[in-house]
Amino acid sequence: MAVFTLQQIAERIGGQVFGPTDMKITGTAEIEKASDGEITFLANPRYKHHLKTTRASAIIVDDKIGEVPEIPYIKVADAYFAFLQTVVLFHPPRELLAPGIHPTAVIHETAVLEEGVRVGAHVFIGKNVRIGRNTRIFPNCVILDNVSIGEECILYPSVSVREDCQIGHRVILHNGVVVGSDGFGFAPHEGRYVKIPQVGRVIIEDDVEIGANATIDRATLGETVIKTGAKLDNLVHIAHNVVVGEHTVIAAQTGISGSTRIGKRVMMGGQVGTVGHITIGDGAQIGAQSGVSKSVPPGEVVFGYPARPIMKTKRIEAALNQLPDLLKRVRQLEQIIETLQNSRKDQ
Amino acid sequence: MAVFTLQQIAERIGGQVFGPTDMKITGTAEIEKASDGEITFLANPRYKHHLKTTRASAIIVDDKIGEVPEIPYIKVADAYFAFLQTVVLFHPPRELLAPGIHPTAVIHETAVLEEGVRVGAHVFIGKNVRIGRNTRIFPNCVILDNVSIGEECILYPSVSVREDCQIGHRVILHNGVVVGSDGFGFAPHEGRYVKIPQVGRVIIEDDVEIGANATIDRATLGETVIKTGAKLDNLVHIAHNVVVGEHTVIAAQTGISGSTRIGKRVMMGGQVGTVGHITIGDGAQIGAQSGVSKSVPPGEVVFGYPARPIMKTKRIEAALNQLPDLLKRVRQLEQIIETLQNSRKDQ
Amino acid sequence: MAVFTLQQIAERIGGQVFGPTDMKITGTAEIEKASDGEITFLANPRYKHHLKTTRASAIIVDDKIGEVPEIPYIKVADAYFAFLQTVVLFHPPRELLAPGIHPTAVIHETAVLEEGVRVGAHVFIGKNVRIGRNTRIFPNCVILDNVSIGEECILYPSVSVREDCQIGHRVILHNGVVVGSDGFGFAPHEGRYVKIPQVGRVIIEDDVEIGANATIDRATLGETVIKTGAKLDNLVHIAHNVVVGEHTVIAAQTGISGSTRIGKRVMMGGQVGTVGHITIGDGAQIGAQSGVSKSVPPGEVVFGYPARPIMKTKRIEAALNQLPDLLKRVRQLEQIIETLQNSRKDQ
Repeated sequence: MAVFTLQQIAERIGGQVFGPTDMKITGTAEIEKASDGEITFLANPRYKHHLKTTRASAIIVDDKIGEVPEIPYIKVADAYFAFLQTVVLFHPPRELLAPGIHPTAVIHETAVLEEGVRVGAHVFIGKNVRIGRNTRIFPNCVILDNVSIGEECILYPSVSVREDCQIGHRVILHNGVVVGSDGFGFAPHEGRYVKIPQVGRVIIEDDVEIGANATIDRATLGETVIKTGAKLDNLVHIAHNVVVGEHTVIAAQTGISGSTRIGKRVMMGGQVGTVGHITIGDGAQIGAQSGVSKSVPPGEVVFGYPARPIMKTKRIEAALNQLPDLLKRVRQLEQIIETLQNSRKDQ
Repeated sequence: MAVFTLQQIAERIGGQVFGPTDMKITGTAEIEKASDGEITFLANPRYKHHLKTTRASAIIVDDKIGEVPEIPYIKVADAYFAFLQTVVLFHPPRELLAPGIHPTAVIHETAVLEEGVRVGAHVFIGKNVRIGRNTRIFPNCVILDNVSIGEECILYPSVSVREDCQIGHRVILHNGVVVGSDGFGFAPHEGRYVKIPQVGRVIIEDDVEIGANATIDRATLGETVIKTGAKLDNLVHIAHNVVVGEHTVIAAQTGISGSTRIGKRVMMGGQVGTVGHITIGDGAQIGAQSGVSKSVPPGEVVFGYPARPIMKTKRIEAALNQLPDLLKRVRQLEQIIETLQNSRKDQ
Repeated sequence: MAVFTLQQIAERIGGQVFGPTDMKITGTAEIEKASDGEITFLANPRYKHHLKTTRASAIIVDDKIGEVPEIPYIKVADAYFAFLQTVVLFHPPRELLAPGIHPTAVIHETAVLEEGVRVGAHVFIGKNVRIGRNTRIFPNCVILDNVSIGEECILYPSVSVREDCQIGHRVILHNGVVVGSDGFGFAPHEGRYVKIPQVGRVIIEDDVEIGANATIDRATLGETVIKTGAKLDNLVHIAHNVVVGEHTVIAAQTGISGSTRIGKRVMMGGQVGTVGHITIGDGAQIGAQSGVSKSVPPGEVVFGYPARPIMKTKRIEAALNQLPDLLKRVRQLEQIIETLQNSRKDQ
C-alpha cells in the first residue's frame, strides 16, 4: 500500500503543513471513520467538534477553519477538493487495460487510432472511426462507422456507439451505455405504425460522464446533444433531439422525452420524467420522481407529480395529511348548518 | 450527397408534380427549418400560413390542401407518409454491417442461417438456431440454443436472446436488448427464497421494434408475447407471461408486471408501472408515470398515481392547487359557526 | 419429452402416493390449465373446488388438505414447494454452455479457474481473477482484475464486473448486469464538477439473483453490499455504498440512492425510489412507485409519493376522489353562512 509524508501530500494539493512534515500517512477516510495513520479533512466549521474525537493522524483544513491545535494539519484553500486529490494520490488510476491493441479486436483498416489508444479484447471498430490520444476502449465495446471519439476518454466494457456519433475529450462512458440508438418515432399509416427514419446523430461534448446502461438516442434529423461537463447517472434515458446543457447533473433512471431542452447547471433528481418539447431553464432544480409536464423557468425549484414549485408541493403534501380529517369536519359543519337552518325555520 | 429531381421524388412517393419537374432537391427538412434546395411537407391545413415564409424550394402536400401558389409542390394522398419516404430516399439504409459471416463469429454447426444473413464480429450463435433471409446480427450479439429469428430482422450490437425464444420477421432490437431473461419468481421456503423455475419462453411477432437496453422476461410456464407491430422504447421492462397486443406503443422506462395482458393499439406513456394479472383493454391510453393498479376498460384514457380516468385526475389536480387554501376556509367556517352557536345560546 | 410415474415423482419430492403408483405423468401445470397426463398442486384449501373440474391426471396436495377422492394424489408437507421441485424434474437445467473454456475467451495467465468452470466465447477475464467450482460464464461477459466469484454461479451473456468486486456462491447475474460501475459523485469546484474518486468495491454475497440490465455501483470508499439471498429484478439501480439486507426482494426498475441501508426481508415493489442516507428497517414493505424520502421503521408498510403508512395513503386516496366535490360543498356552506349572517344582521 502507498505511503506518503505530510509534506508530499501538501506539495500535491498545494497546502502548508502545520506539524511534523515527515509524518507517514497510509490512507484517507472521513473524519468519523478515520483511524490511526489516515488523513481526513474538515471544510465546514460546523463539524469542528469532530476534531476532538477523530482518530485520524492528520487533517486537511480550509483556510477559514483557523488553527487546529488538536492534530497535525495541512491548510489549503478548498479542503474538500484537496482531500479528493489526496484520495487520488493514494488510489492512482489503475492499469486495468493493457497498453496497445488486443489482437482479438476487429478494427477496420480505415479507422484512425492516435498515439496511446488502448483497445481491449473483442472490441469492434468500424469504418472511418477516429479515436484520440490515450483513449481507452475496454473489452467488448462496439463502435460503428464514422464515429469520432476525442482524447483521454474511457469506454468501459460493453459500451456501444452507433454510426456517425461524435464524442469529445475526457468523456467517461460506463458499462453498457448505448449512444446513438434510434429515436422512438412512428407514424400511423393504414392501421399500423411506420417507422420515422432516425437519420440524425448524437454529439457528446467534453468532460461528460454517463452511467451504466444509460441510453442516448440519436436525433430524428439533426442532433441530440449532451453538452460540456454534463453528468448522467445509470439507466438514464435521453430521447431523440434532446439537448442537455453544460454542467447539468441528472440522477439515475430519469427520462427526458424527445426535443426537450435542458439548460446549464440544472440539477435533476432520480426517476424524473419530462414530457417532450419543453425547456428546463438554466439552474433549475427538479426533485426526484417529479413529472415535468411544462417548461420550467431558469432557477426555479420544482417537485412533485405533476411538478409544481417546491413550496407549493410541500404545502399540498402537508394539507393532504389533513384531508381525510377535513372531510369529516366539513360533514360536521353541514350537519350543524342544517340544524341551524331548521331551528331558524322553527322560530 | 444525394440529389433528386422533383419528378424522381414524385415517382418514388406516387405523387404529381406541380412546377418544374427537373428542379434539383438536395435534402429534406421541416417547414420552419427548411432552407434553399430542400423539400418539406404540409399535411395539416392549420399550418398553411407557413407556406408564405418557408424557405424550402418545394413541398409535398395532401390532396386536401388544394393548390399551392407559393412554391413548386407534389400532391399526394398522405403527405406525412410521403415525406417519410422522401427522407428514406435521401438517407438510404447504410451498409453498417459487411455482407457475410465475420470470421470471429462463433456459430454452432447445427445452426441454420438462410441466404443473405449477415453476422458481425464476436457474435455467438448456439445450437439449432434458425435465422431467416437477410437478417443482420451486429457485433457482440449472443443468441443461445433453439432460438428462431425471422427474415429481414436487425439485431444491433450487444443484443442477447436466451434459449428457445422465437422472433418474427422485420423485428428490430436495439443495442443491449435482452430477450428471455428469467422471470422474477421466488417462493418463500424455510426462511429463504427458492427460485421458481422459469421454463417458458418469449415470442416476438412480426414488425416489432424494441428500444435499447429494454428487457423482456421469459414466461414461468408458457409464453411472454409481444404481438405484431408493437413498439417498445428504451429501458422498458416486460415481466414473465405478459402479453403486449398488436400495434401497441409503450414509451421509455415503463414496466409491466407479471401476467398482465395489454390489448391492441394501446398507447402507454413513459415510466408507467402496472401491477400484475390485470388487463389493459384495446385502444386504452395510459398517461406518463401513471401507476395502474387495476384493469383498464377498452378505449379508456387514464392518468395519475394511482391511475384514474384522465378527467377525474385533472379535476383532482386542479382541486389540489386549492387544497391549502381550502383548509383555511374550513377553519374560518368553523369559527363563524362557533360564534353563531354561542350567540344562539346567549339568545 | 420426459415421463415420470407418480411413484418416481413422490420419491423426488418426499411424498406419499394415493392412487396408482405407476401412472405416467408427462408434465406440470396450474390446476385450472392442466390437461390429461399432467400433474398439478393444491396448497390452499380455498381452491378445493377446483378438484371437481380440473383435467389434471394427478395432484400434489398439502397434508392439511385431507383426502382427495377426486383424483390420484401425492401428499407432502409443502405442496407448492414440492410442485416447484416437480417442475424442475420435468425441466432439468439445460446444457446451454459447453463444458470447458471456449478457445476465443481471453483469460489472463494469473487468473485461477477452479474445476468445472465453463467459460463461453469472447469472454474476457483479467488479472488475478478467481472463479469457483462449476461456475458458468456465458459468452461476451467481461470480468476485470482482482474479481473473485464463488462456486456454482451463473453469469448470463454480456454481464460485466469491474475490478476488485467480490461475488459469493450460487449467485445468478442475468444478461447485461453491471457490477462495480463508478458511484455517481461530483464535487463543484471553480464552476464545474470534479469527479469524486470511486475507489470502493461491490460485495455480492451467496444466493443473490440480479435481473437483466440492473446496475450495482461500487462504493466511493468501502463497499456496496448485496447480502445473502437478496433478489433484485431487471433494471434495478443500486447506488454507491448502499447495503441491501439478507433475503430482501426488490422489484424491477427500483432505484436506491447512495448510502441507504435496506434491512433484512424487506419487500420493495417496482419503480420505487429512495433518497440517500436513510434506513429501511427489517421486514418493511414498500409499495410500487413509492417515493421514500425518510427512514422506514422495521415492519412498517408504506406506500405512495411521498411514501406514507399504507392505511394513511389509502385514506388520502379515497378522500382525493371526493376532493373536487368537497370544494363545491365548502362553497355552498360559505354561501349559506353568509346568508345566515346577513339575516342575523337584519334581525
